[in-house]
Amino acid sequence: MGGRDQASRTLTFTNRPVIAAQSSVVGPKEGKGPLARHFDQILDDDLLGMASWEQAESEMTRRAAMACLEKRAMPETEVEAMLCGDLLNQIIASSFAARSLGAPFLGLYGACSTMIEGMILGAALVDAGYRKNALCAASSHFCSAERQFRFPLELGNQRPPSAQWTATACGALLIVPRDERPIGHITHGTLGVVIDAGIADANHMGAAMAPAVADTIRAHLRDTRRQPGDYDLIVTGDLGIYGREILIALMREGGVPLDDTRLVDCGASLYHPEQDAHAGGSGCGCIASVLCGKYLTELSEGRLWRILALGSGAMLSPTSSMQGQSIPSISYAVALEGVAGA
Amino acid sequence: MGGRDQASRTLTFTNRPVIAAQSSVVGPKEGKGPLARHFDQILDDDLLGMASWEQAESEMTRRAAMACLEKRAMPETEVEAMLCGDLLNQIIASSFAARSLGAPFLGLYGACSTMIEGMILGAALVDAGYRKNALCAASSHFCSAERQFRFPLELGNQRPPSAQWTATACGALLIVPRDERPIGHITHGTLGVVIDAGIADANHMGAAMAPAVADTIRAHLRDTRRQPGDYDLIVTGDLGIYGREILIALMREGGVPLDDTRLVDCGASLYHPEQDAHAGGSGCGCIASVLCGKYLTELSEGRLWRILALGSGAMLSPTSSMQGQSIPSISYAVALEGVAGA
Repeated sequence: MGGRDQASRTLTFTNRPVIAAQSSVVGPKEGKGPLARHFDQILDDDLLGMASWEQAESEMTRRAAMACLEKRAMPETEVEAMLCGDLLNQIIASSFAARSLGAPFLGLYGACSTMIEGMILGAALVDAGYRKNALCAASSHFCSAERQFRFPLELGNQRPPSAQWTATACGALLIVPRDERPIGHITHGTLGVVIDAGIADANHMGAAMAPAVADTIRAHLRDTRRQPGDYDLIVTGDLGIYGREILIALMREGGVPLDDTRLVDCGASLYHPEQDAHAGGSGCGCIASVLCGKYLTELSEGRLWRILALGSGAMLSPTSSMQGQSIPSISYAVALEGVAGA
Repeated sequence: MGGRDQASRTLTFTNRPVIAAQSSVVGPKEGKGPLARHFDQILDDDLLGMASWEQAESEMTRRAAMACLEKRAMPETEVEAMLCGDLLNQIIASSFAARSLGAPFLGLYGACSTMIEGMILGAALVDAGYRKNALCAASSHFCSAERQFRFPLELGNQRPPSAQWTATACGALLIVPRDERPIGHITHGTLGVVIDAGIADANHMGAAMAPAVADTIRAHLRDTRRQPGDYDLIVTGDLGIYGREILIALMREGGVPLDDTRLVDCGASLYHPEQDAHAGGSGCGCIASVLCGKYLTELSEGRLWRILALGSGAMLSPTSSMQGQSIPSISYAVALEGVAGA
């Protein structure tokens, strides 16, 4: 792994592409959590008037995408690339949303890291001038995920304390080369490698994903010659409360300690303890909605200057779990900067 | 859709990144077909000594990737991005192969268009200088796909004549900025939009996908100001024999007729009629293996000068089909050119 350790995993976006708009849509439960006031739309009904949870998730993605475009008064016909993914088999929430929008579509699968994977690729396409804009989105829905990955909803299955709750949520953002009122710049993207810590317990995803996040943070800091203190905030996706503790321990043991007060996990902060979400939120929509709803807003308002956002994905399937495989995980990072003088 | 029709869907790779190596691995049935001599590896046993079909598919992807790298004597530790996808839920064939390789991984889902989606993104990352190389791969396996999408293998279910046979196959290729002995250049990539022709019959994928392919050919020709005759060959992925006929009809009706003798479909040419594959091969590995095995070789030998390769994906899932949804489809194109004077 010596050669690997020296190879750069980080893309540098020298033209500093801009996030020009963002939106967030969450379900009723997420709308009762501590971050409620940060979200653009809180759904009254997580079925969104559709005939199935899967169609509801797709409709949520469509709404988030349209809300994002509306903030820029951009018709969907001008979208030059839509980079999107979700947890459903064959990413049908995303592909059916793309059918409705009609935009050039790039389907991604990075499990709960998908939003950040999409932001790296979208930023690259815009930064290099291949596309005039890129719309990135990622969604998850508790009801569609639960019955696909775990048990029928009606079963009311008990869950261990380390289990996470798949967020019903979607975030969308628009990347352009430049803008008069930018939310922030995407300056770097760091790719993930698939890391397997040998965890096979699908109710302990945070433990499976924390080593991948630690690895990507280290790769990012090495490639950019930065320190954790160069960031106002390190935002992880959905490690949950236990996974976040494991990340802190791994980084300390690796000689790059993180400042506990400048590390937030979107999943761990999405629900109140009494909301019965156990270790916290998860799902592609978790970091997507919280990053778009809360942290990009704080970046645009000058309350944050530079943040590192890391998505993490558990690359398992029910089939691989039933076949006794452990959980391979991956993590991507993007470095975001506010606007000078904001 | 007027605005959409005028917006470019094509990325132009001005530095003309190079395909430096390619490999193809196919199963025993594909190894008895008319293209057998073009493939690098024909498996004796499509289980590859593994404990499940899913693990076998992942091992096939790993072998194809390693075979591709070996042709360049490149250790896997030097791979800067692996863009890969497959048909399995949560793309476990790809993610477990990426776990084994340890390379920075970008998971994609474009159904059977995935290889071309990956080539566009990989070419962009290399052309713009974000990555020194990109390894693109896509796989499918009859046994893992059949039981996931259709019926248990043991059922021996009858299939209508329009049904296609998921190829057990993988193709991999390596993109670099330049090379002393290039196989060919990637000059353009055209993105797909999700198009739904209203077909709901999962045993008639060619009919569902042909309109998406026709749309992407038209977009490509419009964006590049080219004519079909500017290509020695137009290579489609897995429309099958009926889908290919539908494409020809759609293009003729649209006023851009294709030359029947310079249009090949990888799926329609993968099996002998007596091999009981009905309308032909399908699956992500179909165009991946045939493009890498046959057409890239002919490009490198100067027997072809310029080709347009189009993958097409049916973006359905068993869940969407059971919920009565029709089949949204997408198609991506890459323009490939041989080396002057080859």
